[in-house]
Amino acid sequence: MIHLHHCVAARSFRALWLLEELGLPHRLTVWPFPPRVHAAGYLEVHPQGTVPLLIDGDTRLAESAAICEYLVARHGGDTPLKVRPDEADFGAWLQWLHFGEATLTFPQTLVLRYACFEPPERRQPQVVADYTQWFFARLRTLEAALQGPGAGPDHVCAGRFTVADVSLGYALLLADELGLSSRFKPHVAAYWQALQQRPAYVRARLAERAAAIAQGVSPESAVPRLPGL
Amino acid sequence: MIHLHHCVAARSFRALWLLEELGLPHRLTVWPFPPRVHAAGYLEVHPQGTVPLLIDGDTRLAESAAICEYLVARHGGDTPLKVRPDEADFGAWLQWLHFGEATLTFPQTLVLRYACFEPPERRQPQVVADYTQWFFARLRTLEAALQGPGAGPDHVCAGRFTVADVSLGYALLLADELGLSSRFKPHVAAYWQALQQRPAYVRARLAERAAAIAQGVSPESAVPRLPGL
Repeated sequence: MIHLHHCVAARSFRALWLLEELGLPHRLTVWPFPPRVHAAGYLEVHPQGTVPLLIDGDTRLAESAAICEYLVARHGGDTPLKVRPDEADFGAWLQWLHFGEATLTFPQTLVLRYACFEPPERRQPQVVADYTQWFFARLRTLEAALQGPGAGPDHVCAGRFTVADVSLGYALLLADELGLSSRFKPHVAAYWQALQQRPAYVRARLAERAAAIAQGVSPESAVPRLPGL
Repeated sequence: MIHLHHCVAARSFRALWLLEELGLPHRLTVWPFPPRVHAAGYLEVHPQGTVPLLIDGDTRLAESAAICEYLVARHGGDTPLKVRPDEADFGAWLQWLHFGEATLTFPQTLVLRYACFEPPERRQPQVVADYTQWFFARLRTLEAALQGPGAGPDHVCAGRFTVADVSLGYALLLADELGLSSRFKPHVAAYWQALQQRPAYVRARLAERAAAIAQGVSPESAVPRLPGL
């Protein structure tokens, strides 16, 4: 059975949400965040100490956007959550799938690190400001795309909800947890509202909370709100 | 015809290298780096101002790892450069493809920004140190994988060279340009040497230089060496 190692509201939420979208049986283990600091045993499971870690037989994946592709390709059958190479929006789909992580999530991890997780003497207000600005600059591309021909209330391309929206949706969840979502432009704000209405998203939020409590881990979000907001 | 917008030794090199691996006809436009600063006209081509931009008919891609997947899936036929979902190393392949960009390249862009591109009063030695350390910590995962069963001199998985190696190879090229490659561990160092011997890699390095000169752009690398190395 697929086994997902997860922290509440961390990047591994992409995998959990998608497991719910696909209805795939899985085992969920929730760790306190960051596990390499608060759960020494996790380094024996995953020497990098990061989440997600998804284990499926001999396959181990740690990149959350790669997990999205893996699950739909290996376990999705002909699910509409993937876009086939012969579809017109195949390139756009890959673009948004990667963009959600490499371009929209990474800058937020810098904000988080240098505003919240580092001790006060190592905090870097300039870096926090630089990468908050960077995030919102890149988000303008999404605002424009959501007004394009393949987009709709809960999808950015291909005329339907796909794993590209799971990838982007997590970047928006992270921004919301940080306290940045009040600055979303109208189309991104509406998209974020629509994504949160998906039954599989709701189930995944409940599942991470229930598993945390059952496993004796705090069900609070791993992501603090930015100070001063 | 496929049109690639590129800067010498920038992330867009992944796309150029792969175009050479696949032998795909293409048009190459080289811009001074960073184009949004040194080539105002580029913002009309690509409002984000970043490279790569790959245009193929109505498809526009800006994420370099997405371009790798796109080219092999849409234009690669049954190329061995991609790994099929029914192959044992399919998950590993996706993992390394994403890891090369999201985990190994992004931290280096921080090093570059805060050591070289920002004006002196905005430089951040602590961030440079933090993300240099972060890069080498993550590189240990690659060092271990290169000793695994699917790896060989010029490949990390699947028993053959694939676009995952193009993704990783660019992260190592960037580290080399920055002056960090003397700290590679033995297996990463040997892998980096082997990748540079591939004929398509050599052709791509020559092609970017020739195109830059022909188009009146400096053929020097966009990536400066880190000061103090």
